[in-house]
Amino acid sequence: MQIRLSGGEPTPRQRLVLQILEAALRAVDPAEAVRRFVRVEDETLIVADRRYDLGRFRRIFVVGAGKASAPMARALEEILGERITGGVVNVKYGHVDRTTGVELNEAAHPVPDEAGLRGTSRILELVRGAGEDDLIFCCISGGGSALLTLPVEGITLADKQALTQALLRSGATINEINTIRKHLSQVKGGRLAQAAYPATLISLILSDVVGSPLDFIASGPTVPDTTTFQDAYDLLQRYGLWEQVPESIRHYIESGVRGLVPETPKPGDPIFARTQVVLVGSNELAAEAAQQEAERLGFHTLILTNYLEGEAREVGRVAAAIARELQARGRPLPAPACVIASGETTVTVRGSGKGGRNQELALAAALALRGVPDVLVLASATDGSDFLDDVAGGLVDGTTVERGAALGLDARAALANNDAYNFLEPAGALLRTGPTNTNVNDLLLICSFVPQEGASVRGGSQGS
Amino acid sequence: MQIRLSGGEPTPRQRLVLQILEAALRAVDPAEAVRRFVRVEDETLIVADRRYDLGRFRRIFVVGAGKASAPMARALEEILGERITGGVVNVKYGHVDRTTGVELNEAAHPVPDEAGLRGTSRILELVRGAGEDDLIFCCISGGGSALLTLPVEGITLADKQALTQALLRSGATINEINTIRKHLSQVKGGRLAQAAYPATLISLILSDVVGSPLDFIASGPTVPDTTTFQDAYDLLQRYGLWEQVPESIRHYIESGVRGLVPETPKPGDPIFARTQVVLVGSNELAAEAAQQEAERLGFHTLILTNYLEGEAREVGRVAAAIARELQARGRPLPAPACVIASGETTVTVRGSGKGGRNQELALAAALALRGVPDVLVLASATDGSDFLDDVAGGLVDGTTVERGAALGLDARAALANNDAYNFLEPAGALLRTGPTNTNVNDLLLICSFVPQEGASVRGGSQGS
Repeated sequence: MQIRLSGGEPTPRQRLVLQILEAALRAVDPAEAVRRFVRVEDETLIVADRRYDLGRFRRIFVVGAGKASAPMARALEEILGERITGGVVNVKYGHVDRTTGVELNEAAHPVPDEAGLRGTSRILELVRGAGEDDLIFCCISGGGSALLTLPVEGITLADKQALTQALLRSGATINEINTIRKHLSQVKGGRLAQAAYPATLISLILSDVVGSPLDFIASGPTVPDTTTFQDAYDLLQRYGLWEQVPESIRHYIESGVRGLVPETPKPGDPIFARTQVVLVGSNELAAEAAQQEAERLGFHTLILTNYLEGEAREVGRVAAAIARELQARGRPLPAPACVIASGETTVTVRGSGKGGRNQELALAAALALRGVPDVLVLASATDGSDFLDDVAGGLVDGTTVERGAALGLDARAALANNDAYNFLEPAGALLRTGPTNTNVNDLLLICSFVPQEGASVRGGSQGS
Repeated sequence: MQIRLSGGEPTPRQRLVLQILEAALRAVDPAEAVRRFVRVEDETLIVADRRYDLGRFRRIFVVGAGKASAPMARALEEILGERITGGVVNVKYGHVDRTTGVELNEAAHPVPDEAGLRGTSRILELVRGAGEDDLIFCCISGGGSALLTLPVEGITLADKQALTQALLRSGATINEINTIRKHLSQVKGGRLAQAAYPATLISLILSDVVGSPLDFIASGPTVPDTTTFQDAYDLLQRYGLWEQVPESIRHYIESGVRGLVPETPKPGDPIFARTQVVLVGSNELAAEAAQQEAERLGFHTLILTNYLEGEAREVGRVAAAIARELQARGRPLPAPACVIASGETTVTVRGSGKGGRNQELALAAALALRGVPDVLVLASATDGSDFLDDVAGGLVDGTTVERGAALGLDARAALANNDAYNFLEPAGALLRTGPTNTNVNDLLLICSFVPQEGASVRGGSQGS
């Protein structure tokens, strides 16, 4: 990974902050994330806190879906080598990697296509054919919900999409939409685990959902579902959509309510005795890796939240407020300090400029930090793409606004026009990581440093 | 002080959080703030870290200006009794208190009036008449800038107001506007301290400006000024206003630039050897008092920032994100925890409802906290008036939105219509403190609690 700042060579302080970012990104690299949790010692497979005797398994399959699932499958191939019998993983068009025994099936995202359905069918066939002496790895990552899709028989993709659109228009929450979706799918809501039984199923999950609710990521194909056909029916009634949805969907849900179709597997279902679910990467794990690296570098640290959300420019002002307190009072941590947050902010577009949520957050922080010494604020997308393909975010300080102004640029106007890119790039504050092949939301680092005078005084006394 | 929640009797957890708020408000009560920093032992006057032999002083005067300056003057009367010779304090119409020797002169705020000018004249006369063996207390609080106003001779109040309006329209920052104002005033920018010399001058300042920059509060009548006539001239030129401002102002500033009028007193000026400036109340001191009380009650605490700003509803989402991390992971502090912030948020009004910045912050936090157990978020104006006269803010948790929904209220719609009041009030989440007679911006408390189950388990083990 080559993290770069638009200003050219970073200063020593900037380099420290970039080093923290790099450690965080490295920890959630999909292959690295798998390697951190899966290893083989002699003939024992160790996955997080569980051990499996490899001699027990006749065959090992790898299935899965998601934008980062190809490098996850590759990492498993590197770890397990020829022990892997084969498999199918649905990836987004272009998101391939070099694998040998595992087939990468390219499909559409975010709107599913026939290729996705075909791949999901083959995955289902494969896991249904597995027996008690087989082991299945399932690699799930961001985009897995669209890439692992197969409606139940009789319901078309078009039916399901019409339903989703109607639900979105009606104001249903994403949780409510998923409650209904899980009851129309052959894979979501634990159905994939149901199909894999009695094989052993190990799910490796790289989460792009803040808070990492496991039954939510890719609609939880391998975890228990807590919702019912009755819930799905009630929701459609409550939103006044029952009469509008396709007859095929009404029919299937009614069959479910009457018990003519089996429920999704619930918590406590014996099939889950054969499953293990491991969160191998998430915004939280990225924040923890950042914390570890920052501590190694000598920073006092704290993780403030991994649920960060809000309008990017306003979150930027809060980040600046925290930086100002660090600088003015050494609160909540004495310098050098690194306050870490992760999550995902949003941008309400009002202007016509070029930018992204992390760039806006950084620019707003820069405006609120004008003239404040000894602090740095970094905001970065972990996938290296902050709305713009080749930009990850920004790294700003108390001089950023002046640097731009010296070039005739107006930070306030740029922010008003959603044009953070065209301010940060020339001001030397634009961050580029290149594509990271992972996505665990965004990272925010708020760092304070011991004032240079103090540092040189200390340096002098050390030398004497 | 009687802090009340609209829902009636607060729960034990709510009571703890209200107790923290109450301690913070008590600490910055104007009279209490003065009492914390000023006392007499035998014949020694002790003000913060300095001691004065009272026998040295022939007369003691009390002057000042601001919305909370009447109770500050009263506290001095209680402490010094008949030693006080007299004085004049400019207060806002209606903001009086019972004082005896000190005259309270009511005047207009935020737009100054003739009564304010007359009072300022009398204050100036009084301090000019004081000599080396006199002591002057100057009580400054929020609103002091408008209430302590006296343009230099030849410049009318109307001239000065026209200038301020032109500057605001031109996009000048409040710092820049004050640079110019300080050079047109007989009291601002240290001029009052200049007039008081060679008397001893003790300024007691209750700050309503976030960050409490002393040369900024009431435009710093008793502290050194770092700006010059040349700066004022340059700013008017830079904003293209030189030709537009009244001739009287041009003339005075040109005289200053040429050295025909003395500069405002600068840092290091010997007059400041006779002055002491004490910040007796501020948002920071309120936050520290909150921290002290929270710790006394058994909470783990941290002060996150005293520079909080941003759109209220977005800051509310960040507060909720912090609460969620406290609840989910005990980070950055294990439960019970209290994360404290202070500052002042803003509201962009788009709807037609009833509310205030703290109410909006609280409602937005409630929306983001739906269903999250064991956390409470409090947002309160320290003056007891969160835009609405009789409302201080809100106290919300993971059940607030449901409580309102059970009454047929829609939290999201209320927020969209800037109508937080009409949701929080019936939902039992509206906070009332009554008028506190102080104003040190807003306080935000984010609290987590040990889950009730855990608490009862621990209770059980203690009993066994």
